[in-house]
Amino acid sequence: MQIEAPRLKKSFIKSVESIVGEGGLSVQTLDRINYSRDSNFKSVIQNRYRKIENLPDLIVWPEKVEQVARLVHLCLKGQIPVVPYGAGSGVCGGTVPVCGGMVIDLKKMRRLVKIDQDHLTVTAEAGMMGLHLEGELDRRGFTLGHFPSSILCASLGGYLAARSAGQNSSRYGKIEDMVKNLEVVTGTASIIETRDSTNGDGIDFNQIFLGSEGILGLITQATLRIFPKPPSQLFSSFRFKKLEDGLEAMRRFMQGGLKPSVVRLYDPLDTLLFLSHGKGKKKLPPLLNPLAEAFHDQSLKMVLRWPRLIQQTGRLASQRCLLVVVHEGMQGLVLEEQKMIRRICLDLGGEDGGEEPARRWLAHRYSVSYKSSPLFYSGAFTDTIEVATGWDRLHRLYREMKKAIEPHAVVMAHISHVYSDGASIYFTFIAPLKGLSQSENLYDLIWDQALRACQKVGGVISHHHGIGRLKAKYMLEEWGHGLELLRGLKDFFDPHRIMNPGKLVLLKKVRKEMAA
Amino acid sequence: MQIEAPRLKKSFIKSVESIVGEGGLSVQTLDRINYSRDSNFKSVIQNRYRKIENLPDLIVWPEKVEQVARLVHLCLKGQIPVVPYGAGSGVCGGTVPVCGGMVIDLKKMRRLVKIDQDHLTVTAEAGMMGLHLEGELDRRGFTLGHFPSSILCASLGGYLAARSAGQNSSRYGKIEDMVKNLEVVTGTASIIETRDSTNGDGIDFNQIFLGSEGILGLITQATLRIFPKPPSQLFSSFRFKKLEDGLEAMRRFMQGGLKPSVVRLYDPLDTLLFLSHGKGKKKLPPLLNPLAEAFHDQSLKMVLRWPRLIQQTGRLASQRCLLVVVHEGMQGLVLEEQKMIRRICLDLGGEDGGEEPARRWLAHRYSVSYKSSPLFYSGAFTDTIEVATGWDRLHRLYREMKKAIEPHAVVMAHISHVYSDGASIYFTFIAPLKGLSQSENLYDLIWDQALRACQKVGGVISHHHGIGRLKAKYMLEEWGHGLELLRGLKDFFDPHRIMNPGKLVLLKKVRKEMAA
Repeated sequence: MQIEAPRLKKSFIKSVESIVGEGGLSVQTLDRINYSRDSNFKSVIQNRYRKIENLPDLIVWPEKVEQVARLVHLCLKGQIPVVPYGAGSGVCGGTVPVCGGMVIDLKKMRRLVKIDQDHLTVTAEAGMMGLHLEGELDRRGFTLGHFPSSILCASLGGYLAARSAGQNSSRYGKIEDMVKNLEVVTGTASIIETRDSTNGDGIDFNQIFLGSEGILGLITQATLRIFPKPPSQLFSSFRFKKLEDGLEAMRRFMQGGLKPSVVRLYDPLDTLLFLSHGKGKKKLPPLLNPLAEAFHDQSLKMVLRWPRLIQQTGRLASQRCLLVVVHEGMQGLVLEEQKMIRRICLDLGGEDGGEEPARRWLAHRYSVSYKSSPLFYSGAFTDTIEVATGWDRLHRLYREMKKAIEPHAVVMAHISHVYSDGASIYFTFIAPLKGLSQSENLYDLIWDQALRACQKVGGVISHHHGIGRLKAKYMLEEWGHGLELLRGLKDFFDPHRIMNPGKLVLLKKVRKEMAA
Repeated sequence: MQIEAPRLKKSFIKSVESIVGEGGLSVQTLDRINYSRDSNFKSVIQNRYRKIENLPDLIVWPEKVEQVARLVHLCLKGQIPVVPYGAGSGVCGGTVPVCGGMVIDLKKMRRLVKIDQDHLTVTAEAGMMGLHLEGELDRRGFTLGHFPSSILCASLGGYLAARSAGQNSSRYGKIEDMVKNLEVVTGTASIIETRDSTNGDGIDFNQIFLGSEGILGLITQATLRIFPKPPSQLFSSFRFKKLEDGLEAMRRFMQGGLKPSVVRLYDPLDTLLFLSHGKGKKKLPPLLNPLAEAFHDQSLKMVLRWPRLIQQTGRLASQRCLLVVVHEGMQGLVLEEQKMIRRICLDLGGEDGGEEPARRWLAHRYSVSYKSSPLFYSGAFTDTIEVATGWDRLHRLYREMKKAIEPHAVVMAHISHVYSDGASIYFTFIAPLKGLSQSENLYDLIWDQALRACQKVGGVISHHHGIGRLKAKYMLEEWGHGLELLRGLKDFFDPHRIMNPGKLVLLKKVRKEMAA
């Protein structure tokens, strides 16, 4: 296929070079192709069939915040779109350069600026990788408490821009709960710093940028709260006959003020899959083997032709729902917490499953991100949909979204971020690859059905993956008047509309519908 | 003295009447005087000497959000300042009509809209009083977890506009942590609603309005998270030889993941005062009696002439610092929590003081607000200064601010809102009344010295009383670039600058200094 050359003037490239040096940019076709997508599965499908689109015109790697500001200034003058880029682990197309332009990859800005052991904060540049940051803290006896399954392939800036949640969010909160201050280069090329408002008064300006997905500016540095590593860790697991009972158990202990570090409840099919991998895996009923082995097995395609059959078989084979819990903190406290959670679970008919499942989960905590590729090459595609709502609507949200996806794909779910007021449901679906346009259509159809079902029940369409390009068109219903506020922020921080166009919210559509 | 008549045209008054009815407004002098101040002590001093200023032109009492929007619209057309008003309990002059105009008192909008027992939320109009709201929840078995000492005389809207903290903030967080969504009438007379973003993605728009003190719009309704009432409550107290040891104990148990509901550490003088009132009060050394009895005693004036002497005597009489703790939650857990906190405190040389002091504190938890008036009539004035910072700088902040206030007033302090990353210090000072202008000057001097000392150490100048008029001039140093963001918000929500002028930040000064 034909790749168009970058649409940039030579003088512009020269100006960029004068900022970042010759080695600090690329207009090479291969680089442009690589930066035309993130980890969104629609891009993966398209890539599989060699459909290449949304190429940036150039990629730059600045090393300092001043360089970032000068680059944005240059783009402002030339009306060139700017796309902030971290590590490309986003699954919602948040960094896809839909209008071309300049990708600013912050990966060279990966300095650990400071660990303040008295104030218990860490300051790092946005391009630092999640695992490196946690590693540096860990060897000094601290933790950020943020463990997304993408920790190996996500940057701090990505965490912040998309309001990421880690696997320990029930104890430590989401990333937006950890931030003390930010350094941002806005769409007007200003470098601004929010203050450290430690429990203070006034407006929390950090919250304007957290979750803004680069449409107001680029987050270049952040200071976050850290914690001493917890001295004790305990493990529990339970099996419930019905998902509802597991949900009720979680609601009770979260509202009772318990703060386990990890809480994950798997639906029947997800439980089967969980139990059938890793060391000490269980043998499954014959019909389910192909699915359980999906990530290695070539016979999957056959099975995927009849998603409903699989669902039905899953239901017959087991109604058990596994709950794994990790307890962290001071020893006496975690012992007590474990005891109390056990009592709540047994009261609701849960069976004690011992500590092995929770230990096994911990051992494989980051492996899930690496399962999709082999699956892909066996003739199927997969994706995950993470939504959230209050405890009152949680089971209905599960049922309705499952019902919406089931006709088109094999679907399973777990609940893995729980709070006193609600929780997130994490759906995984697997559907057959059927050539480019049919697969693209099926992908869009599944997402559309799922998100519409979510909004109908009153759920929030994203818990921690962000909105990106994928969900932008649903934001009008999602935010309502909030969009007017966003427009105001956009007018102020990015009046020339150069920052990450087409993401988070489709502003033109907003203006039209708001006027109506 | 001469009170000027309202500067409003009759046609304007007619228009207001057409919105709220004849009984829904007042231009009476007495009402205008009453609404010329809140509970800020400088106003109280001025009032004592019959200095009356900052009268609004009229006061209105709307009953519905649509009326509020129409009133703002009217003010927009007439360029009339709008001052939102809740219950007047603010101590920073946040509702003083420094440019006259229309006070919109929301007290008639006090409807409890909904308690959702499944979703665990409460929706109420902003004019509802704190105690009524908590009472309605309490009799249904729930709590908001928000218990400011002003709960008897503060409204929900006031909580939200000033980012209030309750006495149980260590467990439940500050008000900004509880909000799910808001209804706001902006300075452009639009009614907007933020979404319930329960643990979801995207920007948290609530945080733009929380703490904005009416300069962007009027918060008219809110939905907040509620909790089941905790089944168990336990009480502890300890005495430390040095304040530093008490601080270290609090830091250890908060960073260890314990979440006691109430945590209060008193400095030596505040400890003496605490121990000498209520049932079971202790007898004090002779010299200190006058101070301890300050709130009833007429001889205070004598004592206040020598503040340094009093401080010195306090130091000699006792170095003990009292820590009171209330534990709330599931029984097993609070027992364990109590045990662990006890161990931490004893390790640091604390003496177990039993449960009585903490029980006594609970019995008198709201009485502090009513002590200032009798004190006032005994020839002194008082005020409180609440600041915050990280654990690393907390003791230095205490020392430096105490040193700054001591030459001018008797000063004591307690630490009563503690978090994993830091805490708030609550200073109380008592100074002699010396006639109007001398007292005004002394008041301003004490505040100025105290806040400059705070900013020098890197503290935050307010934890939960807000900024208002009192601290606005310090916000340029406090927020830095944040002020540019605020200007952007102001341009969007209140382009005609009618909303609560002179509060939170002095925008003209910002423009000048930012340009420099």
